[in-house]
Amino acid sequence: MIKAHGYSSPDAHSRLGPFRFERAAGGPDDVTIDVLYCGVCHSDIHQARNEWDNTVYPCVPGHEVVGRVSAVGANVTRHALGDVVGVGCMIDSCRSCEPCTNAEENYCEGPNSWLSTYNGPMVPASQAVTGSNMYGRDNTFGGYSNIIVVSEKFVLSIPAALKPEVAAPILCAGATIYSALKHWGVGKGQHVGVVGFGGLGDMAVKLAKTMGASVTVFTRTIEKLQDAKRMGVTGVLEHDHDAMKKLDASFDFIISTVPERHDVNPFIKLLKRGSALCVIGALERMSPVNNQLVAFHRLSVAGSLIGSLADTQEVLDFCAVHGIGPDIEVIRIQDINEAYSRVVSGDVRFRYVIDMSSLGDAEAE
Amino acid sequence: MIKAHGYSSPDAHSRLGPFRFERAAGGPDDVTIDVLYCGVCHSDIHQARNEWDNTVYPCVPGHEVVGRVSAVGANVTRHALGDVVGVGCMIDSCRSCEPCTNAEENYCEGPNSWLSTYNGPMVPASQAVTGSNMYGRDNTFGGYSNIIVVSEKFVLSIPAALKPEVAAPILCAGATIYSALKHWGVGKGQHVGVVGFGGLGDMAVKLAKTMGASVTVFTRTIEKLQDAKRMGVTGVLEHDHDAMKKLDASFDFIISTVPERHDVNPFIKLLKRGSALCVIGALERMSPVNNQLVAFHRLSVAGSLIGSLADTQEVLDFCAVHGIGPDIEVIRIQDINEAYSRVVSGDVRFRYVIDMSSLGDAEAE
Repeated sequence: MIKAHGYSSPDAHSRLGPFRFERAAGGPDDVTIDVLYCGVCHSDIHQARNEWDNTVYPCVPGHEVVGRVSAVGANVTRHALGDVVGVGCMIDSCRSCEPCTNAEENYCEGPNSWLSTYNGPMVPASQAVTGSNMYGRDNTFGGYSNIIVVSEKFVLSIPAALKPEVAAPILCAGATIYSALKHWGVGKGQHVGVVGFGGLGDMAVKLAKTMGASVTVFTRTIEKLQDAKRMGVTGVLEHDHDAMKKLDASFDFIISTVPERHDVNPFIKLLKRGSALCVIGALERMSPVNNQLVAFHRLSVAGSLIGSLADTQEVLDFCAVHGIGPDIEVIRIQDINEAYSRVVSGDVRFRYVIDMSSLGDAEAE
Repeated sequence: MIKAHGYSSPDAHSRLGPFRFERAAGGPDDVTIDVLYCGVCHSDIHQARNEWDNTVYPCVPGHEVVGRVSAVGANVTRHALGDVVGVGCMIDSCRSCEPCTNAEENYCEGPNSWLSTYNGPMVPASQAVTGSNMYGRDNTFGGYSNIIVVSEKFVLSIPAALKPEVAAPILCAGATIYSALKHWGVGKGQHVGVVGFGGLGDMAVKLAKTMGASVTVFTRTIEKLQDAKRMGVTGVLEHDHDAMKKLDASFDFIISTVPERHDVNPFIKLLKRGSALCVIGALERMSPVNNQLVAFHRLSVAGSLIGSLADTQEVLDFCAVHGIGPDIEVIRIQDINEAYSRVVSGDVRFRYVIDMSSLGDAEAE
């Protein structure tokens, strides 16, 4: 075991604070990483606060992890000491089911699905019936920490052209968006709608635009219209009924990044015949969909979950090649609770990234 | 004008009864049809009872109309005096929008969309601002009548191998199912689920099976398990949790034919990764869909609306070639109110078809 420290949530109602723990030392296939930066994803907040009813405490969030390789196992070939690397939402999967063998680990159909970078597995080994916790762990601890040990297969390469702090949100927000845009064939000449203009929305706007689509972003925050303008896309206020009406049946694809239950019916109306609205932000019961709107134009309301390892590497490379990346604000780990409040109130442009050097030494705390 | 008579609903709360009216005489492009049979669709009931809040009274339902050509206009080439022909849900469309010019009249994007065989247009000419009722009619009257006059383009040919009373439900139920199965690529080797086992479900089972799929039908009626067996498919009771559990992630496509708001979440769980559940029966706000179920396997919840003219002719021909058709029970028009009660309570195997000779002469009533 190796000593580690970071910030954790002790229960659903407390603030995050310093936490010391141990990680399993790296085996022959593992990469040990000194964490440099970690993005703050809205799902970190859902998880820390047990809003999905599946949090195992203590919870060390963080699945947009960028760091420097400090050790590699004997079998590791793709990463070397000193490399800047990334870890996204997954640190393992069953590796043998149909999706896993077809490079879609994010849809792993193994007994516990993929292993989440933090708060995974959801069925702790101590409570699992024999064989049902294939990962043999009670919990996993994420990137709000000084060090992380991950199997080589689940470690991404960060291109040199990307600053490590900018790369961090690409590992979840970027991959989640990219995977959906790619699957639904977004490209040149299309009109793509982005609902919600937070960390995911920022990446959706930039990726769809760079893929050649004409992009309209929907927001409830009047100040964000300026951000849309700055990014060279159209911004529309969701409650501007006249503006919404003019967009009827004009979109080839709409992606909703809103991180909670919301009404998608006003956006369904905006889809062209035969096209899809994909909900990636809200993993819960949605508001009722009016099937009259859906059926009358043979539409679909779909969902998509994070990205595969291949998607994640592709989007990192895509961002590096095209010189795009998330708008970020770097914070200290000591500011994490304040940051959570601001994410919940939508008061961030667009992703907080924790400079993990602010953690200091565990001994000093 | 020509004199016609049939059965109508005078308001949302009364029984259907005899009704005399006039139809516009056929023009050069029109086919005049003596109605032989008319299927009873669940939407007839929704419409007669104003359950979609858009019924214009009096309402003469019926959009599964089979009859014999009694007159043709000078320009008519595809149908001749004495031919057995059919009329489905539409009797016109704008003919110039993108869907219309691409043979998808059922998704017409003209000012009033396609013209419904009955209760169309929904914006009566008398209330419409200039130009918004392109069809220039206050209402249309459907197939619960002795005669109907329809533009040639919207008149289908009934293959000789199909009995006219059996052909009737194919014009809506059959076309609606066929269009969706075709669009989502149902075929050999696939596992297709059918939710709801009424008139639409009956056609879904037979069409999907004939297309080569292995079919499972879901019902709440234990007696219908025998019907499934008789049709050579698997029947499952929706509330049999053990049976449902065993079907997790095993379907390539599921079609829901339930004619009212219902919970699709138990069926979403049964879909394979990347596949779709299509709701065709319920044109209203559905129960909330759990996007966790949807996103975790990149699924879609879709809708589809009736069928195009091409779909309708194709499914008529397909049924004739393969010797399949709906299970029907022929009734007299005088039994229509009793039939409605039995359709609502699910007590029909599987489609009522009215023998329109029971109407008799208007003068006799």
